[in-house]
Amino acid sequence: MIFIRMIIDKYQYLKMKSNLCRTIPISLPLSLSPSLPLIQAVLALFLAVPVWSQAGKGAIKPVNFAEVRFDDVFWKPRMDKVAAVTVPVCITYTEEKTGRIRNFDRAAGKLDGPHEGIFYDDSDVFKALEAMAYTLKIQPNAAIEKKADEWIDKIAAAQQADGYLNTYYTVTGLDKRWTDMGMHEMYCAGHLIEAAVAYFNATGKRKLLDVSIRYADHLDALFGPGKKNWVPGHQEIELALVKLYHTTSDQRYLKLANWLLEERGKGLGKGYTWDNKSWGGVNYCQDNVPVKEIADITGHAVRAMYMYTGMADVAAELSGAGYEAALQRVWEDVVGRNMYLTGGIGSSGHNEGFTNDYDLPNESAYCETCASVGLVFWNQRMFLMTGEAKYVDVLERSLYNGALDGLSLSGDRFFYGNPLESEGRHARREWFGTACCPSNIARLIASLGNYCYAHSDRAVWVNLYAGNSASLQLAQGRVAMTQQTNFPWEGMVKIAVNPEKKMAFALHLRLPGWAGGEASPGDLYHFLDTIKTGIQILVNGQPATWHAEKGYAIIQRTWRPGDVVDLQLPMEVRRIGASEELTAGINRVALQRGPLVYCFEGPDNNGEVFNIIIPDHISLQKTWRADLLGGVMTITGDASVLLPSADGQSMSTWRRQVTAIPYYAWNNRGPAHMQVWMPRKVARARVWGN
Amino acid sequence: MIFIRMIIDKYQYLKMKSNLCRTIPISLPLSLSPSLPLIQAVLALFLAVPVWSQAGKGAIKPVNFAEVRFDDVFWKPRMDKVAAVTVPVCITYTEEKTGRIRNFDRAAGKLDGPHEGIFYDDSDVFKALEAMAYTLKIQPNAAIEKKADEWIDKIAAAQQADGYLNTYYTVTGLDKRWTDMGMHEMYCAGHLIEAAVAYFNATGKRKLLDVSIRYADHLDALFGPGKKNWVPGHQEIELALVKLYHTTSDQRYLKLANWLLEERGKGLGKGYTWDNKSWGGVNYCQDNVPVKEIADITGHAVRAMYMYTGMADVAAELSGAGYEAALQRVWEDVVGRNMYLTGGIGSSGHNEGFTNDYDLPNESAYCETCASVGLVFWNQRMFLMTGEAKYVDVLERSLYNGALDGLSLSGDRFFYGNPLESEGRHARREWFGTACCPSNIARLIASLGNYCYAHSDRAVWVNLYAGNSASLQLAQGRVAMTQQTNFPWEGMVKIAVNPEKKMAFALHLRLPGWAGGEASPGDLYHFLDTIKTGIQILVNGQPATWHAEKGYAIIQRTWRPGDVVDLQLPMEVRRIGASEELTAGINRVALQRGPLVYCFEGPDNNGEVFNIIIPDHISLQKTWRADLLGGVMTITGDASVLLPSADGQSMSTWRRQVTAIPYYAWNNRGPAHMQVWMPRKVARARVWGN
Repeated sequence: MIFIRMIIDKYQYLKMKSNLCRTIPISLPLSLSPSLPLIQAVLALFLAVPVWSQAGKGAIKPVNFAEVRFDDVFWKPRMDKVAAVTVPVCITYTEEKTGRIRNFDRAAGKLDGPHEGIFYDDSDVFKALEAMAYTLKIQPNAAIEKKADEWIDKIAAAQQADGYLNTYYTVTGLDKRWTDMGMHEMYCAGHLIEAAVAYFNATGKRKLLDVSIRYADHLDALFGPGKKNWVPGHQEIELALVKLYHTTSDQRYLKLANWLLEERGKGLGKGYTWDNKSWGGVNYCQDNVPVKEIADITGHAVRAMYMYTGMADVAAELSGAGYEAALQRVWEDVVGRNMYLTGGIGSSGHNEGFTNDYDLPNESAYCETCASVGLVFWNQRMFLMTGEAKYVDVLERSLYNGALDGLSLSGDRFFYGNPLESEGRHARREWFGTACCPSNIARLIASLGNYCYAHSDRAVWVNLYAGNSASLQLAQGRVAMTQQTNFPWEGMVKIAVNPEKKMAFALHLRLPGWAGGEASPGDLYHFLDTIKTGIQILVNGQPATWHAEKGYAIIQRTWRPGDVVDLQLPMEVRRIGASEELTAGINRVALQRGPLVYCFEGPDNNGEVFNIIIPDHISLQKTWRADLLGGVMTITGDASVLLPSADGQSMSTWRRQVTAIPYYAWNNRGPAHMQVWMPRKVARARVWGN
Repeated sequence: MIFIRMIIDKYQYLKMKSNLCRTIPISLPLSLSPSLPLIQAVLALFLAVPVWSQAGKGAIKPVNFAEVRFDDVFWKPRMDKVAAVTVPVCITYTEEKTGRIRNFDRAAGKLDGPHEGIFYDDSDVFKALEAMAYTLKIQPNAAIEKKADEWIDKIAAAQQADGYLNTYYTVTGLDKRWTDMGMHEMYCAGHLIEAAVAYFNATGKRKLLDVSIRYADHLDALFGPGKKNWVPGHQEIELALVKLYHTTSDQRYLKLANWLLEERGKGLGKGYTWDNKSWGGVNYCQDNVPVKEIADITGHAVRAMYMYTGMADVAAELSGAGYEAALQRVWEDVVGRNMYLTGGIGSSGHNEGFTNDYDLPNESAYCETCASVGLVFWNQRMFLMTGEAKYVDVLERSLYNGALDGLSLSGDRFFYGNPLESEGRHARREWFGTACCPSNIARLIASLGNYCYAHSDRAVWVNLYAGNSASLQLAQGRVAMTQQTNFPWEGMVKIAVNPEKKMAFALHLRLPGWAGGEASPGDLYHFLDTIKTGIQILVNGQPATWHAEKGYAIIQRTWRPGDVVDLQLPMEVRRIGASEELTAGINRVALQRGPLVYCFEGPDNNGEVFNIIIPDHISLQKTWRADLLGGVMTITGDASVLLPSADGQSMSTWRRQVTAIPYYAWNNRGPAHMQVWMPRKVARARVWGN
């Protein structure tokens, strides 16, 4: 019966897309009891026909960053820092301290000399440009916009007559282009498109968008069914082509994205990425199985994140793509068995990626900043596809912890990896040889407006709580949304809902997992205590009527200009335990308050953190420290601390106050000892003489 | 004035070598005061003329393993284990579990199919064969000898008409041979020669020797001044060619060895070894400076050891080679700044080699077994070149600790790396993909006879103390030497000196550093206490007349058949401290008794070793444990141990007996915690909940 159901769905679906398939005669003997082989054959016929159509006209749509303006205590200063410091750092490294911009002049024939740097360095230029675009909306800056236009001129000048644009091959020999799938040509193309779309959205200027369209047309002319085969060695082009489709409405880009995804797992991939067996061969770049069959997470974390993002993007547009089940499976594998409490993923530095389930060591945790950024992208798309808040829980976890940790408070130092424990060997750095992370965290923070809200024709979703104003277009008209809050330091959020006129729609307020009973989707992490306070929602000062669905509190009513919603989220310190399968978390506790995971760092604890035991019975208090790390809510308590005697001949345990800080803020006072997972009791110890 | 002195030396030296250079007219204005440029020019003239002559006819010569028969408590059982277990394991892996032998059949055209394994796998066959050769002298075994002859037939059949012999290129395409200096062709050739010489010495059979001579002739025809340039990407051929020279007296091989050494550091090296910059490029394979200019140790440890061995071999034969100063410099750099207490070298797994001075972490210590084997080779040659006992001290340290640790007590499990600390993540393995270590430690132990004695025309050196009998050829006649001892468990050594007739010669008894005031050459390690007992030497029961020189007690007398020397070495437990520059050794103590470095392992200490403090004042006793690890002398003492309370809420320090075992014996009871360097006092601690 399942096959008949599928055929009916397909039939319904074909009926919906009137323009492309209306001439296909459909006549199925549904009243008969068709043999299984017959049904399979019919089904195969349908599946073999590509079905290009937009899924769910009433689907959830993102709100563009350009429509959201932050004015809060937490993100606005960070966005300002990115605009004032991080982006200028990226510019300096891109055009002065490295040859990234010079390569475009060489490709344009305006400068002599060999290609400088690594073959994928163009991507850093595009990502820096994308970050610049977002910041122009945060802090209009004529100098930055002039610089962006100057770069765009250089980029445009480096484009070949046929649309190709890659300085490495243009400088080293165009005869070798498109010969090695591992050489990041499509990866760089994807970042060009993302930058172009962002700059177009931020400024309305089309020049880079037109460059990227010409390049996309070149790709479309060269690759696809009956044309040249290609498996991108580093995914990214797929999600970018969907962005270009959203911007241009040209379905060719959506089809090409889907075709590139479908190319994987068929043994077609060739090139240096595949040749390096020590990285994991086909597993490394997720070319091991067709994407529809993905069940387990493998390989390079950033590649995986960008690919799943692209798959979810395509799935949201093409119901026939059939990626939903695979995405659900692999998402459960990631968050249920392979994600750190910080939202960091990819535990191994060797392959910058995944190893075995539950292999999540804390000190050697790789947790690349870019991978956490990618986890944000992917979970946003999963939410858009399903409307489930659990994806935003993961997005929020990654954003406030694993990703945000990648950027120093000063805005000009970066972590490539984000471990959950350090004996002082980790240090933030000014830049990297492979410099993907700085511009990636910059573009994420600068475009945070993309992630706060979503809407459909008759509903609004509030996903992230932060002081800001936004404008959303519903079927009946526009709605202005304004949040006032001290989140994540306090849990009170005042939301002004201002439809341009009286309008009925469903307001979805996300109920974060940390505000209830589920520490994280899956069994990897759990609360060690129950919450004492609850969620309160008022509408215009009166208790609201709402129901919970898919992790949201839904208030369905006719909204009027001036309506105000008060949301009170419980901000208790949550004590979190890890699954027994997580060796590094046995008999340990981690602290979380709101979305923020906490850690203990040496400077707040007499230089040491590995001698601290956090017994279950001690009470933990929050204390606001305006003077510390740009202003943070600390967590303090009287814990057990192991200390040496004066003569160094013995040790004993003392009760002493200890202090935890938000994880994102560690390593801003130089390298130091740090630990997220603290022993609840002690079974053994190790001593050092110094 | 230093230049004049050098010229005089050169002059003296030229006078000595009567056969080659007697027609060179030498007439230097020594009574004048020549200008520096003139002297330099004259010197350059001399240095530019290759001087092929055997240095010092009265030089120190090694004693061939075939002349020494062991019957002691320590080495004989290990040699028997190598013969009975390790060598058969090597045979099984070489011909059944991997395709190493099948590749020779393919190269001979007797078997189809592609080359199996890695391009340097031939070398494992040759090293296994070399080990087989040595064991035939320990345990004559018709089956092993038959197997060796069978392999030799296969090897001979794979040799090309021009002498070339390398299964990888013969099977994959001879047109590509000698095109990539990184491809280990000369490395494999070197191991072929070593095996051939060993088998010839053990059995008198020439077949493999003739094969290796044909290959060496091929090399000599192809490479050399005015012929093809070559820089071996992995040194080994150099020392092997000197062995072939010693066996055949054909000076071409010595010259070729020297030429290959001289080729280095000139920018001639090319190939994949050089291309892999992450390993260190030219530094990795010691192609960074001309060998005469070497000052610092760099790169891959085994490559370095084999090269220095070859340099010392050449230097011992060709005084004009000029390698002595470089070898002294780099030796001081190795033992003074880059050697573990165990004689392990090469701290980093990334390049299997050296990093920065004093970078000797204990837990991540790579200390490849092969590198310690190489350190034994090199120090033997340094001793032969100089007559200094300090080199044998290093040889002994490496042999009894870093190298011996590479082989399990059972003889069939191996360590590739030999760390000085383990949290249980290290385990001995049955075999390795790159399987250099098993046959390397097998051939070293089986050929231990090479290292016990040395002689010149009128002197005998006793370097290693172990129960054995040997026969040495002095100018006046043969001397039979017999040692009876329980060394290394006890320090009494009875040496029977039996010249075939009354003979005057100098008997050199090595005075080990550990029996006196110097823990190790250089400042890296030092004794924390002074020794209470001294060295005693009797000749025929009476206190001997001896003097100390170059680390030896020299007894110069006319020896008669039946003479007996009693040597008593102090076998106190020595407490060793490390230089402050060695971070991992600060406020720590290591224990050594005789040549054996000790460690603390979990199974002897309630499963834990990192909670132990060894205070300075506690007394440490030796206890013989026949039941433990094949019989070991343990060291015990009442130390301070940090233990948790029953409820796991606190910790405190207790006095408890702890037990140390010889380092070589650890990890024979499965993975466990282990530590060599123990805290003397405690400054900090780390707690775990499990």
